[in-house]
Amino acid sequence: MEKKRIVIVGAVALGPKVACRVKRLMPRAEVTMIDQDEFISYGGCGIPYFISGDVSDIRELMSTSFHMERTPQFFEDTKDVRVLVRTRALHIDRENKTVSTVNLDTGVEDSIPYDLLVLATGSTPNRLPIEGADLPQVLDVTNLHSALAVKERISKGEVDKAVIIGAGAIGCEMAEALTDLWGLETTVVEIADQVLPVMLDRNLARMVQRHMEEKGVQIHLGEMVRKILPGKGAHAIEVITGERTIHADLVITSVGVRPNSELARKAGLNVSPQGAVLVNHRLQTSDPHIYAGGDCIEVMHLITGKPVYFPQGSLANRQGRVIGSNLANHFATFNGVVGSFSIKIFDLAVGSTGIPLQTAIKEGFDAQDALVVQADRAHFYPTQDLMYLQLIVDRKTRRVLGAQGIGANGDALLGRINSIAALLPHKPSLEDISNMEVAYSPPFASAMDIVNASANNAENILDGLNRAVDLEVFEKCFLEECREDSICLDVRGESNAAPYVARFPHRWINVPQETLKHKMQEIPRDKRLFVICNSGVRSYEALRQLEAAGISDAVNVQGGVAVLKKCGLVKFEDDEEKEKS
Amino acid sequence: MEKKRIVIVGAVALGPKVACRVKRLMPRAEVTMIDQDEFISYGGCGIPYFISGDVSDIRELMSTSFHMERTPQFFEDTKDVRVLVRTRALHIDRENKTVSTVNLDTGVEDSIPYDLLVLATGSTPNRLPIEGADLPQVLDVTNLHSALAVKERISKGEVDKAVIIGAGAIGCEMAEALTDLWGLETTVVEIADQVLPVMLDRNLARMVQRHMEEKGVQIHLGEMVRKILPGKGAHAIEVITGERTIHADLVITSVGVRPNSELARKAGLNVSPQGAVLVNHRLQTSDPHIYAGGDCIEVMHLITGKPVYFPQGSLANRQGRVIGSNLANHFATFNGVVGSFSIKIFDLAVGSTGIPLQTAIKEGFDAQDALVVQADRAHFYPTQDLMYLQLIVDRKTRRVLGAQGIGANGDALLGRINSIAALLPHKPSLEDISNMEVAYSPPFASAMDIVNASANNAENILDGLNRAVDLEVFEKCFLEECREDSICLDVRGESNAAPYVARFPHRWINVPQETLKHKMQEIPRDKRLFVICNSGVRSYEALRQLEAAGISDAVNVQGGVAVLKKCGLVKFEDDEEKEKS
Repeated sequence: MEKKRIVIVGAVALGPKVACRVKRLMPRAEVTMIDQDEFISYGGCGIPYFISGDVSDIRELMSTSFHMERTPQFFEDTKDVRVLVRTRALHIDRENKTVSTVNLDTGVEDSIPYDLLVLATGSTPNRLPIEGADLPQVLDVTNLHSALAVKERISKGEVDKAVIIGAGAIGCEMAEALTDLWGLETTVVEIADQVLPVMLDRNLARMVQRHMEEKGVQIHLGEMVRKILPGKGAHAIEVITGERTIHADLVITSVGVRPNSELARKAGLNVSPQGAVLVNHRLQTSDPHIYAGGDCIEVMHLITGKPVYFPQGSLANRQGRVIGSNLANHFATFNGVVGSFSIKIFDLAVGSTGIPLQTAIKEGFDAQDALVVQADRAHFYPTQDLMYLQLIVDRKTRRVLGAQGIGANGDALLGRINSIAALLPHKPSLEDISNMEVAYSPPFASAMDIVNASANNAENILDGLNRAVDLEVFEKCFLEECREDSICLDVRGESNAAPYVARFPHRWINVPQETLKHKMQEIPRDKRLFVICNSGVRSYEALRQLEAAGISDAVNVQGGVAVLKKCGLVKFEDDEEKEKS
Repeated sequence: MEKKRIVIVGAVALGPKVACRVKRLMPRAEVTMIDQDEFISYGGCGIPYFISGDVSDIRELMSTSFHMERTPQFFEDTKDVRVLVRTRALHIDRENKTVSTVNLDTGVEDSIPYDLLVLATGSTPNRLPIEGADLPQVLDVTNLHSALAVKERISKGEVDKAVIIGAGAIGCEMAEALTDLWGLETTVVEIADQVLPVMLDRNLARMVQRHMEEKGVQIHLGEMVRKILPGKGAHAIEVITGERTIHADLVITSVGVRPNSELARKAGLNVSPQGAVLVNHRLQTSDPHIYAGGDCIEVMHLITGKPVYFPQGSLANRQGRVIGSNLANHFATFNGVVGSFSIKIFDLAVGSTGIPLQTAIKEGFDAQDALVVQADRAHFYPTQDLMYLQLIVDRKTRRVLGAQGIGANGDALLGRINSIAALLPHKPSLEDISNMEVAYSPPFASAMDIVNASANNAENILDGLNRAVDLEVFEKCFLEECREDSICLDVRGESNAAPYVARFPHRWINVPQETLKHKMQEIPRDKRLFVICNSGVRSYEALRQLEAAGISDAVNVQGGVAVLKKCGLVKFEDDEEKEKS
């Protein structure tokens, strides 16, 4: 039994993890890992940092934490795992349990017998189905070859202007990489009407967009690239969208990836209509002798209860360990995902878990969002940053469906996101998050931490105590339509409110919350009242006071002036000054 | 119904939260908050930062996040809550529903009627039952008066040398406050044999101790202070322990607090033998018209299933909201604690949740600890710090009982601790933590994050794959007893191992892990083999290789050389240099 022959197709993330785990459990297993590339076992998620220069040598992405390069020889020496690079798996013969292969350099074909087989075939970047997508200046950054090609062009000084197609995670990371260190004039074109579509809701996406624009990235949303033409001389490429022509020297496409499942499909294994290999919770395919994981499979989404394609290097690692254990006759399971992700975009960290509001509504939840803005530590502690945290919750069951946030301090933000993520499989109620026991001391948390506050706020909204409206409602009714019957009641101190009062005469009035109870007579009762403060806290207090005084239809602008500023709405000259300094 | 009279005794943390919440839900309630002090509604946990100077003005601890001071007038104006300061509650007449009070300035007595009463009476610092404990130079830092007194003495230049009695959280925070900014010669005396007793296990406590000592704090463990004598001239105080006499100008005692429950006890409410008010999960006392929360109550520990006294400002806030909701006829519960805490001590963050190993064993669990050392982000990302994370797990059920860690990056550490804490009420298995979905990107996490690695490691220990021994075993058998039959097998690279090989000739041998499979003949089979690497990862790999080669009793030094260094064991001259630079 112990001398099992294990063959693993694919040697980037999942494959090596499987190989190492199974060898530790069954040292006498004969493990062979094959990959069609010569680069193996690398951290693909590090590519944007290699291109930006944060990671100076591409070999760092292929190294262990103790600085050994994970070459085939490394696997041979330290793990007793045989690695065949530049070797493509052509066909699985499930009856005879063999994988036929071809060496891409020599053309020599072979047949490798297995007792257990693992498919770690990963994914392939989507290509735009348009003219010019195959021009040599059009690249992606999904593997080390293309990463090297992109960096070579830039570091040779061949690129002044770049276009990134797709404002998903990779597109946004690449925008930073190209702009921040290399100083390229970078334009992002995205077909959806927001950055990070599907991942973030609109409120936060606008803040991210604004941050990128402040850093010099041009962003065109809701635009489809029609074709890419080779031009002449400098900036030799023309990216043509429905709205404009953008000249560039380099085009990076980041429009998603799709699972590599041809081998599985041809072998008669179950594959989804979208092309992902289907597995059970032990990560076995429809053939119990064949396992699969990583970017080529579909997993269960624990919030929607539906299968989802969610390729992530971290999941590949964790699934790899599960497969390794199962191969060695342990019993391990991978039950699904809650959909957590994080990105750093310039000075902003973005994190999310569960499902966004948009998805929740599509999935049939009676969903509500609730946004809070609060310091990431005790407000009296000398260093701190504002964090923006949004919960998504089902009104009927009060179940928390997701959370997303942004902040300057990524570790602090992700700490909150990950804590909520940990609970999501247990279908937490708002009360669970209200009482979540965040370890408290002033340098690291507030006594009532933003995590707790986010749930308290959502409870207040669901209970009808806090009639919160999103920025978009405020923008439309107050800022765009400039309706005379919409009044903004600013309950901050006088000096904070003064510039806004001056900007919107008669329509922006200031009554500091601590004076409100004596000034109820001054509050107009025939207007739509948008109550606002800096974060939404004092305005909520004011809302309760107004209601007690019989004004029960005023609404609270979620996130207050902090959100207006973060989205770049209602700007003042001194804001500009501040941003420049 | 709405015009309920609500009286709250105590106005520091829980009291104000109750008052504000209930007023928002029931604007017409008549809420009166009484406190015997003149300072109310302050962040007591900020006191060490006030004393250190990080918080320059004590009023910041009494201010809202929008810089308004929370005075009685503030509560009156913004919250419509009446506050009586310098007013002591003398007696509760439960039958007539009144609280009798006395004004401490005027001596005027009064009787305040209530429909619902809240006890937010807090805690009192323990005093040492020894001679000299009442000397004017002996202070605590549990309220703003004593904080002001301590800071006044120091800032006047009256203090060169200070002694802190008690190395719990406050004692350690105070050691930083006195040493770091004020440059005082500070000595900590602790009766237990470690710093942060009961809170941390020994491994991590030693690292914390070492860090404090490097920062210049003198620490005497296992010493009891016998008496404190007034001396003459400079350093006019003598702190006399069983072992020594320490001269000082100031003594700060931080030896715990006890609940203030006299009012409750005299009113015939249920009180624990330790003096904490007993409440149900809605935070009602044995009289349903009287609620209690914060530092005066006992709560359920969700790991042990037993009541515990766990006073924390954050719990007081969250409990305050629960009480406020219940007073207003909502239904809210507080189900217990998992025991999370955090502290910053100089450049080190410390976090913990659940129960330590020592407690787990006392509680009858078949408990095991498992320590990992790993970077707090992708190892190829340019900035990173090592994190030390220990899980405590029950061998039989594989239930995770607790986690504790230290690291330079507190937000990153607490993110991990809080994620595990979020799961603890759900009795997570190791597999739950192995597969915990930490949001991944290189700036914020590893693909196999330290949280996942900690559970993987614990699994390997429980499965007998990783025979891990604690530092203490290694220290005793290898370093102290210097037994000839104990050999250390260092599987790091040659240059890392060389100084150790030179230091321990014949007893510390170096076989890099990548060469091990060819050198099995060189490994002694008649000795006790301690396998070591930098963190415990390669040594685990080596352990598996040794076992496959028939050497099945070698053990792995948990946390490896990183832990040896962090505890200050096996020091080299260049280490000293590095620390100084």
